[in-house]
Amino acid sequence: VSSLRVALCQVDAVVGDFDRNVRLVLDRLEQAEDLDADLAIFPELCLTGYPPEDLILEPAFVRASERALELVASGSGKCAAIVGCVLEDGGLRNAAGVVAHGEVRGRAYKQCLPNYGVFDEARWFAPGRGDTPLFVVGGVPVGVVICEDAWTAGPIAGLSRRGAALIAVANASPYRLGARSERLSVLKERTADSRRPIAYVNLVGGQDELVFDGGSVVLDQSGAIIASAPQFREGVVAADLELEEELVAGTESVLVTEKPLSRRAIDPPSVQEPLDADAEVYAALVLATRDYVEKNGFRDVVIGLSGGIDSSLVATIASDALGADHVHGVSMPSRYSSEGSVLDAELLAKNLGIDHRVISIDPIFISYLEQLAPSFRHRGEDVTEENLQARIRGSLLMALSNKFGWLVLTTGNKSETAVGFSTLYGDTAGGFAVIRDVPKTLVYALANRRNKVAGETLIPESVLAKPPSAELRPNQRDDDWLPPYEVLDPILEAYVEHNRSAADLVTEGYDPALVRRIYRLVDRAEYKRRQAPPGPRVTSRGFGRDRRMPITSHYLDQPISAKS
Amino acid sequence: VSSLRVALCQVDAVVGDFDRNVRLVLDRLEQAEDLDADLAIFPELCLTGYPPEDLILEPAFVRASERALELVASGSGKCAAIVGCVLEDGGLRNAAGVVAHGEVRGRAYKQCLPNYGVFDEARWFAPGRGDTPLFVVGGVPVGVVICEDAWTAGPIAGLSRRGAALIAVANASPYRLGARSERLSVLKERTADSRRPIAYVNLVGGQDELVFDGGSVVLDQSGAIIASAPQFREGVVAADLELEEELVAGTESVLVTEKPLSRRAIDPPSVQEPLDADAEVYAALVLATRDYVEKNGFRDVVIGLSGGIDSSLVATIASDALGADHVHGVSMPSRYSSEGSVLDAELLAKNLGIDHRVISIDPIFISYLEQLAPSFRHRGEDVTEENLQARIRGSLLMALSNKFGWLVLTTGNKSETAVGFSTLYGDTAGGFAVIRDVPKTLVYALANRRNKVAGETLIPESVLAKPPSAELRPNQRDDDWLPPYEVLDPILEAYVEHNRSAADLVTEGYDPALVRRIYRLVDRAEYKRRQAPPGPRVTSRGFGRDRRMPITSHYLDQPISAKS
Repeated sequence: VSSLRVALCQVDAVVGDFDRNVRLVLDRLEQAEDLDADLAIFPELCLTGYPPEDLILEPAFVRASERALELVASGSGKCAAIVGCVLEDGGLRNAAGVVAHGEVRGRAYKQCLPNYGVFDEARWFAPGRGDTPLFVVGGVPVGVVICEDAWTAGPIAGLSRRGAALIAVANASPYRLGARSERLSVLKERTADSRRPIAYVNLVGGQDELVFDGGSVVLDQSGAIIASAPQFREGVVAADLELEEELVAGTESVLVTEKPLSRRAIDPPSVQEPLDADAEVYAALVLATRDYVEKNGFRDVVIGLSGGIDSSLVATIASDALGADHVHGVSMPSRYSSEGSVLDAELLAKNLGIDHRVISIDPIFISYLEQLAPSFRHRGEDVTEENLQARIRGSLLMALSNKFGWLVLTTGNKSETAVGFSTLYGDTAGGFAVIRDVPKTLVYALANRRNKVAGETLIPESVLAKPPSAELRPNQRDDDWLPPYEVLDPILEAYVEHNRSAADLVTEGYDPALVRRIYRLVDRAEYKRRQAPPGPRVTSRGFGRDRRMPITSHYLDQPISAKS
Repeated sequence: VSSLRVALCQVDAVVGDFDRNVRLVLDRLEQAEDLDADLAIFPELCLTGYPPEDLILEPAFVRASERALELVASGSGKCAAIVGCVLEDGGLRNAAGVVAHGEVRGRAYKQCLPNYGVFDEARWFAPGRGDTPLFVVGGVPVGVVICEDAWTAGPIAGLSRRGAALIAVANASPYRLGARSERLSVLKERTADSRRPIAYVNLVGGQDELVFDGGSVVLDQSGAIIASAPQFREGVVAADLELEEELVAGTESVLVTEKPLSRRAIDPPSVQEPLDADAEVYAALVLATRDYVEKNGFRDVVIGLSGGIDSSLVATIASDALGADHVHGVSMPSRYSSEGSVLDAELLAKNLGIDHRVISIDPIFISYLEQLAPSFRHRGEDVTEENLQARIRGSLLMALSNKFGWLVLTTGNKSETAVGFSTLYGDTAGGFAVIRDVPKTLVYALANRRNKVAGETLIPESVLAKPPSAELRPNQRDDDWLPPYEVLDPILEAYVEHNRSAADLVTEGYDPALVRRIYRLVDRAEYKRRQAPPGPRVTSRGFGRDRRMPITSHYLDQPISAKS
């Protein structure tokens, strides 16, 4: 029996920033060595960032990744490290390099390539075969798999049969509601199958539509969590494991390091209480926003504040992500805005301590109408005038963005985005759509939760209490046009997240005309979503890379029987 | 030896329109029967349209496709038909149903699933194994493969070994420059390998970012083209083939129809001269535009006419696609517009016979500047004011779109789209980006060609002669900021289409600073492209589904050595 100290190195990598990612890995490796760790495990593709998408198809990018691994290897010492990167070896590989003593000692390739949901790995990679050698670290044979490989029984079972005493899993597993408990139950199954402890290290940070939640863990062979890293933050956590050295005869193995290091005792690692669901989503949105803003070279953001719940929540998230000094709120009242809308926005800005200004859109609106009058004569008002107001607001925010270098955050929630209750180039204009994947009912829950955590009212009560309205014509309310969000959101979830048919919902008692109308609205709004900014996925299925729908489709126009 | 008459049924299917697609297939099948054909071959997925993307993941959609095949089968008679559809059989299948005499007689499944470029088939489908039965049609064993299956030797070689006398290939092969000759050379290889004639039927029509060019062909066993269908139009073409009946003992086969039909002679099918490259691209853009507009329920389009070459070409394409009566041009001069810009637009509109109006943006611009003045005080003019003008134009076009139901066509070319020489929500605002994949140098070639074909000047000489300018500030010219397009376009092609590294180009003699700047511009403009409308791909690699790049990436910020 050997005692191995394993360090989970949960890092926030940046796509394509090889210099930074190499430095980050070497820093954390040094930290692991300071903890007398024998093995430091890093996330999947942590040298390239995840997912680098079609950058992988550029040969120069792959060579840069290979060089990055060499650089990490040459900085490595007596603590072995497992480091995710892209390598070329009879095809492009989603690889884990195993380094120690200044060298690359071995490589493992991902065997199961996810090609569903947000994943496109079969587009880029050739799968590894199940003949990865075992890596002998401190005398202990370690089996290495990558992310999806752990979601079926085969790869880990194969490694444990061949004598792996410890399974290391390098991951870039994106957050979604419920992901953590699903992951843990899969890992418990794997320990039950293999009777081997598992060290699972996940990426942390935001990347376009994805946010990685970290939450790395070590499970002992009984499936009990004996160490865990924080959710939504970087961290290095070390844990000691007592492991059998029992390499099966004939198994290919690679010597990485000789004996376990002699070491000082450390405090037993803490096992952290997981966040509850609302806290998780909120933390995901904060991290996604901070990383999108900062990794894209911005420091400040600007948000149109309508006095409604969506923009109030986005401003609150932005303040938590970037600091109140970096958030600029703009009220842009029109002739149809209620008096409360500017007052509520002012109060929110005061509560958060953010910059706030008021720019009236009415003079600009009048100017447009004058220029359009010759074209519009004999035509009544319709949605054109509503959209025009929203587009003036979008143009004003973009003007502030251009002049001051502030990124525009859009404020549309998932319910609106799904049914197309938005103006293209108006309220959808901006760089990052913070709550694009948050249904309206969850928007309320997050806002209430944030007030509760603050112990004071950040988002004014009047904002939480007022009926939702776009305020683009007199006395307009969302529920003139949409069912109440408590009715709408479950229908949207059934369709958008679970591909359920309208007929299914009707048999459950939903009103056929309502279901049919909602499904059509979702289908018809695809063209708007295609031109909307990215935003972080937090549900089981978001828009964007996760839901690839044609714009041109007559499927929506089929009678409901054909969709049954 | 049997004489088989084969009908190539080149149709324009609509994604998700099962009723229409079934009717279309039955109509063409009737036409094939009127020609006394024994076998009618339809394109890949012609009952669902191609690609239906994630609609395939909706179980109700798959059931609708299965029902569509049943409907086609029950309408079938003595002429057998091969009809593409999605079926569920131990996984979702990209399938060809073989129908005759009112029944589905057999099914073949696509074996090679493309998952590169614009294709995502591994996302949806399970691959067929190479054990597809032969379908005996009029006594002749026919082997059926689907599109990608013909691009490697295996599937067709397997079928010919097992005794297939004819190979039928059902395709949805999107157009790109050079696709036709590449396809023909692959098909010639297949006839050389297999010594079997091949009947290749391609889809025709536009679908979001793709346009299918038809151009179906029959090759005899020597690889000579003995029949061809038109490019970029629907059509049914019949050809007679003398075929051996030599089913290999033990080969699984399915009886579809008994004997070849007795028949009248037909004229030998014509073999059409292929279009030259510029004519091909132009035809592709016309078809893509017509199909996008009409399949999305529009009849009219509106275009901002700057008096420049891009908008002039788009208006010309739109007139050819929809008829001049359905095209509306709008000049939106600002204080910086040259006098020629409105005059040139007027002349173009007169030449094309399209509606034309002038809306000045200056009063609106002034109104914006007044409202922004308190925010902008002590700040000089910069790109903000340029973008604002472009966004006013975008908002005016969208207002006309909203009021009159006209689809906005955007006019940005590929060179601009690549380097981000555009204003988001300004000139990129619209439903369809007609020339998004056409480099500026090709824009000129297409414009000149169209004038030549017309035998008169449609696009005014002054438009062709003037130096390109955005006219957003005094005396602005594209080449203040960009190299000449003859220099820029080859660099863009090397990077965007061929993933070549900056270092590669430098070794070929390009200026390092220039190459580096262009590459960075391309990388940094990804956020704009992500929010741009779809447009038809005509090169070997377009933007959109074909080039999936992260927005958040620091790869562009690496020193050039790291990209080598």
